[in-house]
Amino acid sequence: MALPQALENYRKQYRKIKLFQDVASVLHWDSEVMMPEEGREYRSAQIAAVAELTHDWMTDKSFLNHIQTAKQSISELPESVRSLWNRELEVLMEEKEKADKLPSEFVSEFAKVTNLAHAEWAEAKKVKDFQSFSKRLEELVQLSKKQADYFGYTTEPYDALLDSYEKGAKANQIQILFSDLKESLVPIVATAPKFKNPFPRSISVEKQKKFCNRLPALLGLTTKESRLDTSNHPFSTSLGKGDKRITTRYSETDPLSSIFGVLHETGHSLYESGLSSMPDWPTPITEFLSLGIHESQSRLWENQVGRSLPFWEFVYPILLSDFGLIEKDLPFKELYQFINSTEKTKVRVEADQVTYNLHIILRFEIERDLINGNIQVKDLPEIWNTKMKESFGLKIENDAEGVLQDIHWSMGAFGYFPTYTLGNIFSSQLFKKFSEEFPNSHNKFSANGDFSDLLNWLRKNIHSKGKIYDVDTLMQQATGESPNAKHLISYLNGKIKEITT
Amino acid sequence: MALPQALENYRKQYRKIKLFQDVASVLHWDSEVMMPEEGREYRSAQIAAVAELTHDWMTDKSFLNHIQTAKQSISELPESVRSLWNRELEVLMEEKEKADKLPSEFVSEFAKVTNLAHAEWAEAKKVKDFQSFSKRLEELVQLSKKQADYFGYTTEPYDALLDSYEKGAKANQIQILFSDLKESLVPIVATAPKFKNPFPRSISVEKQKKFCNRLPALLGLTTKESRLDTSNHPFSTSLGKGDKRITTRYSETDPLSSIFGVLHETGHSLYESGLSSMPDWPTPITEFLSLGIHESQSRLWENQVGRSLPFWEFVYPILLSDFGLIEKDLPFKELYQFINSTEKTKVRVEADQVTYNLHIILRFEIERDLINGNIQVKDLPEIWNTKMKESFGLKIENDAEGVLQDIHWSMGAFGYFPTYTLGNIFSSQLFKKFSEEFPNSHNKFSANGDFSDLLNWLRKNIHSKGKIYDVDTLMQQATGESPNAKHLISYLNGKIKEITT
Repeated sequence: MALPQALENYRKQYRKIKLFQDVASVLHWDSEVMMPEEGREYRSAQIAAVAELTHDWMTDKSFLNHIQTAKQSISELPESVRSLWNRELEVLMEEKEKADKLPSEFVSEFAKVTNLAHAEWAEAKKVKDFQSFSKRLEELVQLSKKQADYFGYTTEPYDALLDSYEKGAKANQIQILFSDLKESLVPIVATAPKFKNPFPRSISVEKQKKFCNRLPALLGLTTKESRLDTSNHPFSTSLGKGDKRITTRYSETDPLSSIFGVLHETGHSLYESGLSSMPDWPTPITEFLSLGIHESQSRLWENQVGRSLPFWEFVYPILLSDFGLIEKDLPFKELYQFINSTEKTKVRVEADQVTYNLHIILRFEIERDLINGNIQVKDLPEIWNTKMKESFGLKIENDAEGVLQDIHWSMGAFGYFPTYTLGNIFSSQLFKKFSEEFPNSHNKFSANGDFSDLLNWLRKNIHSKGKIYDVDTLMQQATGESPNAKHLISYLNGKIKEITT
Repeated sequence: MALPQALENYRKQYRKIKLFQDVASVLHWDSEVMMPEEGREYRSAQIAAVAELTHDWMTDKSFLNHIQTAKQSISELPESVRSLWNRELEVLMEEKEKADKLPSEFVSEFAKVTNLAHAEWAEAKKVKDFQSFSKRLEELVQLSKKQADYFGYTTEPYDALLDSYEKGAKANQIQILFSDLKESLVPIVATAPKFKNPFPRSISVEKQKKFCNRLPALLGLTTKESRLDTSNHPFSTSLGKGDKRITTRYSETDPLSSIFGVLHETGHSLYESGLSSMPDWPTPITEFLSLGIHESQSRLWENQVGRSLPFWEFVYPILLSDFGLIEKDLPFKELYQFINSTEKTKVRVEADQVTYNLHIILRFEIERDLINGNIQVKDLPEIWNTKMKESFGLKIENDAEGVLQDIHWSMGAFGYFPTYTLGNIFSSQLFKKFSEEFPNSHNKFSANGDFSDLLNWLRKNIHSKGKIYDVDTLMQQATGESPNAKHLISYLNGKIKEITT
């Protein structure tokens, strides 16, 4: 059946906005991965101009008219599809109302400042000097507070920012969840064993690339629709249908770092690839549901799969061959134990799956205080270092391994960090359910490197659902339970048991 | 002195258009060099949408109002700068009037079809089958004829297209110039010697890359403002201030091909880099003057420099080292003669500097007939092959080495080819004059690899002039003569003499 004209009209306008949002993603990917350094200023202006344009279109009265007319014409549709259309317009209006609250100049300013800040953060990190970045960070904090004011909030400014990444989440609820989690984690961290790096020598970037380049396709993301590159900080982005980009970084002395970067980012891109395959893509429904759900997909492939015995049983001989090693150089058991080793580290992205959540909790507490005005930018290094001492017992030697280590604040992404731990919680819950439904699938992982059961299960239960349901309903439908941390705790406990016996 | 507000207003609108035209260049570069294949359809839609947007802005009434108000306010400026402002608005209006003549839907359609055609051309070339591309090419010819009709012409449709690449050029004048040139070339081709490939073995892509990556910086284009990549067909593009991209392609059995690709594209990018350094960039004046002038810059570095004795005296030891060869493997004299060898070949981009222009003349004749409706797309392979037999005495075995070899028609770029030979003519004339003014500079080339005299001379005489003058005036001012082919003929004659003694 042909759609009523009003629905076509509204979708046409929506697709145009989406098309240009994806143009901005191309500009951004290129600036991180390819662009020569002197191109930055002009590129910042381009990214800001595209952001301003899409914001103008999103907040344009004609678009609201299209949406309202579309809403009315839903009654002409068969009853069976009406609720889906109502949901589509509802999630769009949620996004649009946020956009409506931000003046166009603010959006442009924010895009421009974050693009400049990124280069300055990278430079400050390189020279290990927080002071050279603190003025720009102060500007970003002020802009973010202003943004929170524009959005509005009932309890605290931080909630307004958090909501952009995890719809409906509230800081005080997260605080409770995180406190409980921390309490369960403490005894696990205390008993979790540390194993030493079993690599007999450093591994060249070239050899690592050979192995890493196999991984996306192994999990189900082919080079026909994706590519893998190198950047300072691993990331993934969807540039449109049939075009997912992932990056990692290489350390010759820590060759697992690049591998887990690829597994993580592939997980993100598999989700985006599934979303792009939804009917009528792109619509407001075919967007990712929340960052917590997005992160659950990356964590699932990185941890539940990527640190599992079946996965390593399959890839171990390939890794040996690509790395030019023999079994004696790198015994399987030592490698597998090291992959699941627990150690308090200073740097979040090097953290193991047990201590990782403690890093997140630390960041959540700091950024919440920062946005709510309880602490000052200038005091950040001291606050950071003190908390690291308290939570990890570690002494931070310089800002590069301390407060400057993460890219997020330089992007103005305050409220983003908690979604990582939400992702860990969701991923454990999802993988548990999958394993119950497909108890024999792990044999296919180890024997054939065949992960299709898992990918198909995620496609069916998560990727193809887009924004049709809220997070709670989605998790309920997929697993029969509301989101809860018990599966994460039980997964981590099981893992410790597995590698110590 | 601050500019009158009307001039600021008009320039602001201009810069916005330019900013988005450069966004389209990013999208295009990425699609040629980086994009996974399944991204093509969506990317085509993006490129078309940006083209439509900038076309809308260019043809918008408000822009015309800005220009007209700006024109009036020029009288408020000091007399000394008035003529430059008048010229700026004049060249803009020339461009704008062309844009005004094309309906927005046509521009979008043209961009979309050419983007699709590119992939189909590449595939057809790969499988050596013209028929699989002929329907799309027919569509492009029809669109181009329609474009010629929109632009308007007095003598023949082809002139309307030619004018887009070489302002004011006329096919019948080019026909006369090319006939004369052909006449002079015939005896040169007859006496020019062919030398055999002196490489003792194939050279890996990796080794070639090592050498090629040195070349842009050697000529004056640093990695701070540029990057070199690989694509099917070498090209260069400016993505904005401080961001020039060049590509080449690698053949293990023909290691000079990648080198001359890089030299050629570096020449283009040096011109663009100089234009970006003009005061107040970007304005309509800071654009390249014509494709003939653009090509003169690439040809000059590729041929006058890149096939010269001083250049090779400097790079020879570096090449040996990078390629893992010793002098005995690749004697200097044999290499240098081969670089300047003349041989009738089937493929334009593999042609030497003597026969190259015969390839252009052939294409000019065919595309002129095609656009003027004297020949049909379906007959192209036969026409092509017959002409190759006549002009070169060569038998074309398949379409990949015949009518499908060039990218241009798949881009809808009819009228582009003649600018290559115009570029050869201009480059010889410019280099002759430079050599007269800096007779000792060639020693700096060979002793130190120092090409700064030449780059500075080109910056001063060509790059910093943008569109201030027309081609004839620019060449007059730089060389004291109107453009003429006698320096090209004399250069080629001198070269033959040099390598045969």
